[in-house]
Amino acid sequence: MKCRCGRKAVFHSRVYRITLCDECFPKFYVNLVKRSIKRYGILKSSEKILVCVSGGKDSTAMAYALNELDYNIELFHIDLGIGNYSKESLKAVEELAQTLNLNLNVVKLEDYGFTIDDVESKKVCSACGIVKRYIMNRFARERGFDVIATAHTCEDIILFFIKNVLSGNVEYISKLSPRIDGFDKLVAKAKPLFERTEKENATLVLTLNLPFTPMECPHAPNDIWKEIIYEIEAKRRGFKQNFVRGIVKLAKSVKAEEWEVKHCKICGEVSNFEICSFCKIVERYSRKNR
Amino acid sequence: MKCRCGRKAVFHSRVYRITLCDECFPKFYVNLVKRSIKRYGILKSSEKILVCVSGGKDSTAMAYALNELDYNIELFHIDLGIGNYSKESLKAVEELAQTLNLNLNVVKLEDYGFTIDDVESKKVCSACGIVKRYIMNRFARERGFDVIATAHTCEDIILFFIKNVLSGNVEYISKLSPRIDGFDKLVAKAKPLFERTEKENATLVLTLNLPFTPMECPHAPNDIWKEIIYEIEAKRRGFKQNFVRGIVKLAKSVKAEEWEVKHCKICGEVSNFEICSFCKIVERYSRKNR
Repeated sequence: MKCRCGRKAVFHSRVYRITLCDECFPKFYVNLVKRSIKRYGILKSSEKILVCVSGGKDSTAMAYALNELDYNIELFHIDLGIGNYSKESLKAVEELAQTLNLNLNVVKLEDYGFTIDDVESKKVCSACGIVKRYIMNRFARERGFDVIATAHTCEDIILFFIKNVLSGNVEYISKLSPRIDGFDKLVAKAKPLFERTEKENATLVLTLNLPFTPMECPHAPNDIWKEIIYEIEAKRRGFKQNFVRGIVKLAKSVKAEEWEVKHCKICGEVSNFEICSFCKIVERYSRKNR
Repeated sequence: MKCRCGRKAVFHSRVYRITLCDECFPKFYVNLVKRSIKRYGILKSSEKILVCVSGGKDSTAMAYALNELDYNIELFHIDLGIGNYSKESLKAVEELAQTLNLNLNVVKLEDYGFTIDDVESKKVCSACGIVKRYIMNRFARERGFDVIATAHTCEDIILFFIKNVLSGNVEYISKLSPRIDGFDKLVAKAKPLFERTEKENATLVLTLNLPFTPMECPHAPNDIWKEIIYEIEAKRRGFKQNFVRGIVKLAKSVKAEEWEVKHCKICGEVSNFEICSFCKIVERYSRKNR
């Protein structure tokens, strides 16, 4: 198959009805991201953006696209201390920062006296989420960033949506908006890739030969729902992207959970409880407390 | 397999982890319906209920259960004039009324000068929905019924939900509540089978040998989403019922569409427009207008 410019194709999409080469695809991809950002008001050109990168394909693609679109960005990586996976991830983001000529900020979880590998396996994914959200928010606010960008894909958002409907945690659905404004000590959050698929992100980083690690987190569970989403997409082309747009519309019309803003008695950050979940984790796992 | 009472089993469910015979299953089924009604406040014992029956398995099961639970009910059937399907349906509901010793009310669409078969095929399902909702609401109100009960199953609700998220019509999701209170000229609506599956309904009517027609409406499209839902259920037992409970919770937290109540200039019923959709259909298809 050939690209519309006549060169050999690397990307074919039945959803967009388009076939593109390795030169045309990155422009097409960046333009899709630009369109999402504009249509959904995800980022403003005046904002200083903290771009969270894990070293994987999705956040690598996000960093490339936001850089191409001339946003004021710095990279941010948390070294979670997950054995070889974290070492490979750090190496990838360091190479990425060099390739894109961007400033990279790294926080090591070890500096808090523990790593994700110290958490018992039943709680590891939940603890990892708490740790990442806490550290990125605090870092962003203390360093004067206006917004935190994460590379959630349309698959991520659909998975989160289905699981939360299934478990009846419907109040979380309002969090699926591509832009959540900040309040109190919480910095605004943005998901500029919410309409992008993992396949599009992978094609971008492979086409441009951007540094990334293909390693999966060893703690990540096998997700039957991800398989199901892919099977539905195979039967109904365009399902994922249409569904995610509906979810995002729904997220706006769901009444957000009403809660009284509290501040953690230990660290002073925003919390639902007297002591925030992050401080509880530190209290439990940090070697400094032993 | 044997029932817990020792008799031969007719029903096995991995979701409820139960195996039941033809005597124990109907009691189990009726109790499930009772539980839904109580937990979700779907019906009140003081209410006069118009039970909409199509002649199919689901509404037949509903009529049986509500009758067993001693609600004050009458049956209601609309003869849509869809060839042999409507003839078989009418025969089934007449037999059902006799079997359950219930009053049956029938409205013939033909009395308005047209039938569903007169509607062009692209618009037939949408027109049929409009016609049924209009006629059942007007009949219920004029005859002093407090609530209209329809036999939507958990599959129906999931299908409606997925399609409306996909098309971005998220304001309709608030209509998925198992009980919608009446206002203005609209009578309250109830879905007492929203947690029941088609399989449970089929088992009930077959077990009790209740009169129903297995015929499908000839206008009903093949629904790929229905297949997908069944495939997901096969992979994740309990998916349908857990998901429908989440949807119903979500339906409550979605801000309902705000609209100014208008009344149709022709018939005086509640409408979004000057002329209601039902009167437009009558205007277009009725032989009385030609």
